[in-house]
Amino acid sequence: MTSFFLSEALQQSQTRHLEDLIEWLKIPSVSSDTSKIGEVKQAAKWIADKLKDAGLSVETIPTQGHALVYAETPEVANGPTVLVYGHYDVQPAEPLELWTSGAFEPTIRDGNLYARGATDDKGQVLTHVQSVCEWLASGKPLPLQIKFLIEGEEEVGSANLERMLPELADKLACDCVVISDSSQYADGQPAITYGLRGIATYELKVQGPSKDLHSGSFGGAVMNPAIALCHLMSSMVDDQGRIQIRGFYDDVRELSAEERAAWKQLSPNDDEFARSAGAKELFGEKGYTADERRWARPTFDINGLTSGHQGEGVKTVLPAHASAKFSFRLVPDQDPQTITSALRSHLEANLPKGVTMDLKPDHGAPGMLADTESVYMDAAKAAIESAFGKPPVLIREGGSIPIVTKFQETLKCDCLLLGWGLSDDNAHSPDEKFRIDDYYRGIAASAVLWEAMGTLQPVDPFAEGAELPSKLW
Amino acid sequence: MTSFFLSEALQQSQTRHLEDLIEWLKIPSVSSDTSKIGEVKQAAKWIADKLKDAGLSVETIPTQGHALVYAETPEVANGPTVLVYGHYDVQPAEPLELWTSGAFEPTIRDGNLYARGATDDKGQVLTHVQSVCEWLASGKPLPLQIKFLIEGEEEVGSANLERMLPELADKLACDCVVISDSSQYADGQPAITYGLRGIATYELKVQGPSKDLHSGSFGGAVMNPAIALCHLMSSMVDDQGRIQIRGFYDDVRELSAEERAAWKQLSPNDDEFARSAGAKELFGEKGYTADERRWARPTFDINGLTSGHQGEGVKTVLPAHASAKFSFRLVPDQDPQTITSALRSHLEANLPKGVTMDLKPDHGAPGMLADTESVYMDAAKAAIESAFGKPPVLIREGGSIPIVTKFQETLKCDCLLLGWGLSDDNAHSPDEKFRIDDYYRGIAASAVLWEAMGTLQPVDPFAEGAELPSKLW
Repeated sequence: MTSFFLSEALQQSQTRHLEDLIEWLKIPSVSSDTSKIGEVKQAAKWIADKLKDAGLSVETIPTQGHALVYAETPEVANGPTVLVYGHYDVQPAEPLELWTSGAFEPTIRDGNLYARGATDDKGQVLTHVQSVCEWLASGKPLPLQIKFLIEGEEEVGSANLERMLPELADKLACDCVVISDSSQYADGQPAITYGLRGIATYELKVQGPSKDLHSGSFGGAVMNPAIALCHLMSSMVDDQGRIQIRGFYDDVRELSAEERAAWKQLSPNDDEFARSAGAKELFGEKGYTADERRWARPTFDINGLTSGHQGEGVKTVLPAHASAKFSFRLVPDQDPQTITSALRSHLEANLPKGVTMDLKPDHGAPGMLADTESVYMDAAKAAIESAFGKPPVLIREGGSIPIVTKFQETLKCDCLLLGWGLSDDNAHSPDEKFRIDDYYRGIAASAVLWEAMGTLQPVDPFAEGAELPSKLW
Repeated sequence: MTSFFLSEALQQSQTRHLEDLIEWLKIPSVSSDTSKIGEVKQAAKWIADKLKDAGLSVETIPTQGHALVYAETPEVANGPTVLVYGHYDVQPAEPLELWTSGAFEPTIRDGNLYARGATDDKGQVLTHVQSVCEWLASGKPLPLQIKFLIEGEEEVGSANLERMLPELADKLACDCVVISDSSQYADGQPAITYGLRGIATYELKVQGPSKDLHSGSFGGAVMNPAIALCHLMSSMVDDQGRIQIRGFYDDVRELSAEERAAWKQLSPNDDEFARSAGAKELFGEKGYTADERRWARPTFDINGLTSGHQGEGVKTVLPAHASAKFSFRLVPDQDPQTITSALRSHLEANLPKGVTMDLKPDHGAPGMLADTESVYMDAAKAAIESAFGKPPVLIREGGSIPIVTKFQETLKCDCLLLGWGLSDDNAHSPDEKFRIDDYYRGIAASAVLWEAMGTLQPVDPFAEGAELPSKLW
């Protein structure tokens, strides 16, 4: 489709759009770090001010944790209402020494902007904020109502937003939620993500003797908690990553033949994918392609291990305790609570004698699937094609956006996951980046999307009150 | 036996003896910490000055690492020569927050002196230095020649001393080596240690992707090095601590029936031992008592684990690498080199695909057994009984003093391990301590030992060139 916003209208503003992002990225809004509360607040204020200055009515909604930034444009008679969701918090930047330039000193190299949060999610959510700003500055009437909900706890599980969602339901009422917190399928191949994996995260602490002991005097007579922890972690998966917890796969929704066929059409390049991961070879569950394993199969990962002497040199201690941070990625129909109780039984049954364990579940969320045939999906396909010059493919994503399922359930609305990033953007890793051209294309696609959606009448894909869209290819 | 040194001669000096130890313990001579080189040097100078002031001829012998402090009293015609070995370096003090008082701020509580190195080994080696100082101050002629070799790398494997031992053989020539770096059997039950376990220490690094990855986007398709490490560590031992490496037990010297019978006579108290370890229950190889397992059976311990996110909160990464520091305690006839190659084969055979490994052996030493029927042993028994008011029992120790076997081989001399410490002195742990009365009793026993040994003619238990004393009960 053609659009005013595909003319030079946006190009003239690109420098300012980039400056805005750089300014926001300089704020280290690490939500999991209690020493960064001030910075997180500062990042919230930055985006709130940006929306205020553009003329939206803005509200900062306090939570038990980091605040929600809410903003809206005026209601449009007979026009749909879209809720744009994103987050202003970021992952920790550690290990800092692996960053080529400072994690919070945004730096441009080879057409990319490097900084923690560049793609996840400041850069991506800002595309929608910028597009709305451009609409309001253009003098053209915005053909729909846009609401923004930008939170500060996505990287720590969105627990507070989830808890408050029912009471916020009226305020957030919409026909469709738009989220840009995912990736294109490949360089030059835009995508719409219609499925996400769920997640369940934990910390397990194994307690041995009350203090570190001399491994000579006590080794062989006192159980070593680090060995116990390795036995437990090792018991969780086999050598192809299949989880060994009884009942773990009971509720897994299997992939449909159509889906598997469609994904094969994407002609994935495993070597290229391995290269982007910096892995010498791929690995995983037999009988599934790499895309199937990371998009639609549950997996187990250890995220961190800590025990005993980690400093320089040798210290022959028998450590007092050992701990692991680990997480499962879940798929549709798996319930985090059910997984947690199965996990607890597994660990208790396998706990070596002589030590005790303490399992702390952190956050959990089920997987998500969106309707691939809604009118909003069609509008998004057209908008993306016009801005990226290529029609998007439909994919799933291995990551989790815990709040998305809650939106579907509580707001009874459709969800569009429009990823502007790339799979090698290093989200959650050192040298996180966002390609500057993708940032600009995202802004254009977003601006055109409002135009396309404006022509639609409000519809309710959940009219029959279905829990999840059933009609999926 | 009676002795001038059992009179009040020593008691008058106790305050000064304690002040000396406190002064020495204030120096954080952590040999494994390259940032502490100055402090290690300072601790060497402290003991060298102490010996100089007492009138010994002292020499500081440089090595590729930390220096050796050597000192000697004049030769005595027809009197034996005894070499006292000890070390002025200490283990790292971490975790510092678990110390009741500063690790390098010696503090007296309930008759104990608390500080890193209090018992291992500054406090114990100082008993012999003090006893010789008292002899030289007493005006009585010292009836034998005493040599001191006090090194600064015992806690990191004594590699440099070991390398230099052949060239130092003439200087160190002696009839017997005396070492106090072990423990009494129990509170009120002194002991002579006639056996030590050997040791082999390693660091294993498992390398996965080139950088930390998002566990959602890559989990299930890229092998997690922390999981690979847990698989490898778990494959090393079964649930009773039996090492699973092929051939690991081939050279293990089994316990003799006499030895096992004698140890049963010690009526060990497993509950009391578990309490001293702060363990809820004991554990280990079936068919062996706790003493047998820690004194005479080989064992495997993980000393440290490191991977991924160890900070606060959740970070759902698939880490780039994971590493473990671990060690084996060996028994007589096991060879560290043989163990290392068996270990390497085991790890390579069990390494999961998708990751690479790097195994770095650190230090290694075989186990040791001493002659339990030498004239020096008899002299030590008498001296200890006179100072501690009870005859010592003969035991082995689970720890390792790598250099002892080298002394036996190179100097062809006998070895006496006279432990003044207690098994709950927290060597290598927070709140390391040394009971002040044991310090004083050690000084007295040492002073009397020189008197008892002075009456002996030099003998050579290795005259027939035997490698290790064979006649052991």
